[in-house]
Amino acid sequence: MLKISEPMVDNRKVVQSEISDGNCQKNILVEKHEKLPLEDTPFPFLKSLIPMMLTDGLEEGRKRNNKVVEFVHPKELKKRLDWMEISGEGTEDSKLLDACADIIKYSVKTGHPRFCNQLFGGMDEYSLAGSWLTEVLNTSQYTYEVAPVFTIMEKSIYKKLLSFAGFENGEGIFCPGGSVANMYAINIARYKRHPEIKTKGMTALEKPLVLLTSEKCHFSIKKAAILLGIGTDYVYTVKTDARGCMIPEDLDKRIEEAYDNGLEPFFVNATAGTTVRGAYDPIDKIADVCKKHRLWLHVDGAWGGSALMSRTYRHYLKGIERADSMTWDPHKLMGAPLQCAVILTRHKDILKQCNSACAAYLFQQDKFYDVSYDTGDMSIQCSRKVDVLKLWMLWKAKGDTGFEKDIDNAFHCSRYLAQKLKRTPGFKLLDEPQCTNVCFWYIPHSLRDQPETEEWWQKLHRVAPAIKKRMMENGSMMIGYQPDGKYVNFFRMIVTNLDTTEEDMDFLVDEISRLGKDL
Amino acid sequence: MLKISEPMVDNRKVVQSEISDGNCQKNILVEKHEKLPLEDTPFPFLKSLIPMMLTDGLEEGRKRNNKVVEFVHPKELKKRLDWMEISGEGTEDSKLLDACADIIKYSVKTGHPRFCNQLFGGMDEYSLAGSWLTEVLNTSQYTYEVAPVFTIMEKSIYKKLLSFAGFENGEGIFCPGGSVANMYAINIARYKRHPEIKTKGMTALEKPLVLLTSEKCHFSIKKAAILLGIGTDYVYTVKTDARGCMIPEDLDKRIEEAYDNGLEPFFVNATAGTTVRGAYDPIDKIADVCKKHRLWLHVDGAWGGSALMSRTYRHYLKGIERADSMTWDPHKLMGAPLQCAVILTRHKDILKQCNSACAAYLFQQDKFYDVSYDTGDMSIQCSRKVDVLKLWMLWKAKGDTGFEKDIDNAFHCSRYLAQKLKRTPGFKLLDEPQCTNVCFWYIPHSLRDQPETEEWWQKLHRVAPAIKKRMMENGSMMIGYQPDGKYVNFFRMIVTNLDTTEEDMDFLVDEISRLGKDL
Repeated sequence: MLKISEPMVDNRKVVQSEISDGNCQKNILVEKHEKLPLEDTPFPFLKSLIPMMLTDGLEEGRKRNNKVVEFVHPKELKKRLDWMEISGEGTEDSKLLDACADIIKYSVKTGHPRFCNQLFGGMDEYSLAGSWLTEVLNTSQYTYEVAPVFTIMEKSIYKKLLSFAGFENGEGIFCPGGSVANMYAINIARYKRHPEIKTKGMTALEKPLVLLTSEKCHFSIKKAAILLGIGTDYVYTVKTDARGCMIPEDLDKRIEEAYDNGLEPFFVNATAGTTVRGAYDPIDKIADVCKKHRLWLHVDGAWGGSALMSRTYRHYLKGIERADSMTWDPHKLMGAPLQCAVILTRHKDILKQCNSACAAYLFQQDKFYDVSYDTGDMSIQCSRKVDVLKLWMLWKAKGDTGFEKDIDNAFHCSRYLAQKLKRTPGFKLLDEPQCTNVCFWYIPHSLRDQPETEEWWQKLHRVAPAIKKRMMENGSMMIGYQPDGKYVNFFRMIVTNLDTTEEDMDFLVDEISRLGKDL
Repeated sequence: MLKISEPMVDNRKVVQSEISDGNCQKNILVEKHEKLPLEDTPFPFLKSLIPMMLTDGLEEGRKRNNKVVEFVHPKELKKRLDWMEISGEGTEDSKLLDACADIIKYSVKTGHPRFCNQLFGGMDEYSLAGSWLTEVLNTSQYTYEVAPVFTIMEKSIYKKLLSFAGFENGEGIFCPGGSVANMYAINIARYKRHPEIKTKGMTALEKPLVLLTSEKCHFSIKKAAILLGIGTDYVYTVKTDARGCMIPEDLDKRIEEAYDNGLEPFFVNATAGTTVRGAYDPIDKIADVCKKHRLWLHVDGAWGGSALMSRTYRHYLKGIERADSMTWDPHKLMGAPLQCAVILTRHKDILKQCNSACAAYLFQQDKFYDVSYDTGDMSIQCSRKVDVLKLWMLWKAKGDTGFEKDIDNAFHCSRYLAQKLKRTPGFKLLDEPQCTNVCFWYIPHSLRDQPETEEWWQKLHRVAPAIKKRMMENGSMMIGYQPDGKYVNFFRMIVTNLDTTEEDMDFLVDEISRLGKDL
């Protein structure tokens, strides 16, 4: 750590001399730290907590023979967490450590290879290192002045992500989650079409705007329609085929319908990896329809966009380079910790044009450095958490090759599982997987070899919730279930932990059989 | 860490027996961990990085005789961070550690007591512990299923914050920053007035909606007007008095103007602690005007809302209990790490009514536990980062009393500085501080004792940027500057680091004198 230079008059010279031995100093730092024991730091609470976090939180939390969750019902859990209430006085370290032990004990181990419940999971040493360092350096992404390293790092990561998307000359920004990224997309598309909305608002429009998306899209599109003042009635849903993919002909038809209803379609959302079934909408064909009607094409690749990193699976996003924007959540299939999501667009400068409010106290134009590095006015936020470092750290440690290998492995495991389910009595696959979602029913002995009547399906509808209950109480694994359209409750197995193996898939099949056999 | 119970049939009994010795187990954990050396964990990279983070990042980064920033211009910094680009192959640990040393070296030390540049700063051991544990447990706040502890913890913290705001029966939600919290407020206010907007959108309205806010409000109000489809033309600004506080009579006048223009006013934003000058709008009088016109009153207390925790300073928010909603950023004056912001409202259930999209895959109603604990549908986000733990940890460690003391100290230091500036030749205070912002000019010798002509002010306008440049190059401190209305560039000193002392204020005065005397 450099000392403040003295005396003041020779300030620049001193800075110069520090610069010249910068490299040398850096190496000393690293050498020193590799040997420095934790005991030398003056943070007694952290010193006790760190080993607890690393062992119980991380190491034990990832071991396959440990529980994924220690499930307790809400009211009972409240009782057990009786230390939670905050009173007038402070709390001593030992009690806080007790509380931390409880927090770890009763929290879901999302880094566990059998946590397959959501579109995120897994925990890598390097991403955790990136997260922890982010917290230590606690800054906001709005200006180069307060985030010099991270401003440059964001540019570097955007460039990489843009290149995977085929938006080489575009731009991007990290957002707090894919839902917000989708909101950005709708907002910039609306601005592109009607720049006057920025000043005049939606009421200046003659006709209501319509956005189109498949019936299987993520619910954030609807939430965005609410927040942006578009209205959910103007979210036109497009039919999907048997595999859950948008039917481009129906899109064309729905666009015509919107015109016929006196409305103005402006935005099409294609989903690359739907939330439930992992379906990829056919981007290339949808792009043809969008071109015909001159509509903005957004690809919500929050979940399945990471397939772009795999030469084997990127074909699912064929045509992506024709899109206007893309949502991509590295906190999902790339395994970065929450939150880590970006909106990418091939329209350079549109984010600032659309969102800028030119705050004079933050984005002063008479600063002494190149203010083009102050990117905060592109954002709808002011303070913006640094989300780039954990992704950079993970990516730098693995390289493109490592990422490709891991993502290929996740896809492979999902396909392995699907094949296994087809061969195993009592399991019924909905469909071959597209992204790493594997959707299936478990049919208990009591329901096997029977006609699939309405009543039979209604009985089957209750099987997944019953197994889920046992699974949570047992703590052995976590996977989700839901109904979907005509389908009664089915399991949705998500491979997103990049350490998943074929054996984990075997375990899943055995465990569900075991949990559900007497139902 | 508990093992998965076997055999499956007796699942519930096993869970019961684990419950009964839960407390015992907890104490063993803590005892064990207090003695466990870091060497026993299998994370070699983290083992090297942790001491580096704790010493260079945290300990050295907070020492007063170390630099706040090692400033390097963007192009030069890019050259020095030549390890940044990610290639096909992965990177070995030693090179990553070198990179981390550089990241720490060139990042701004926002925990340093002389980082007074933004509305956030400071770093407490307990908040860092909360942040780090959050990262280890990496989960999303949407359901009890995946965030049992944090769901309960959020409820407990909301209750406390609501009680400080006088919204005892209300509700709240953590958001990614105060700007987003302000957007929530405008959205729920709009929904409350015109619930049909949720489905029909803004174009269904006969008249454009108008929101009113002071000319000194945060720029997020304008950004929200863009995103929400209201339009910046319909952000009616209200005049402020000499101290930067909204003039209630002018608010009344502007509301009438809006009606006269055929528009529909619906929302008034009162700022509790403006960004530049820390002014508190007179909430009680504004509430009278809102009552008269039946408008939603929102208080943007992102910055100054924390005064509610101090019996000495909460009078600045007199009338807060009459407001409909409030933004409050614990990542500002409460010293929690970024991001930590909430929207509070006294209208129970409105967040869900307004924002819900009822995703069947996430908020299944046939779950086996009490699904009223699944609060995710209140949010405009889907995945939502856990922001509560770091605040809880900090608060629990300090207690209400500790917080009050720290906040009182920050206010005291700002007042101490203001008095000192009034006594010190070459300094000119804009105004007595309200929140902890202290705004002032430094007048170098060459400009002293001269008539304050237009030319003189123009010369003074260039002084703050010149001193800021030297300050950054020297690295001794960081404070911001900006023009504001009729005022040329002035310094804005922010006391937000809760460890700030009177001596830090003395240093600031000496240092600016030293940096600027020859200008």
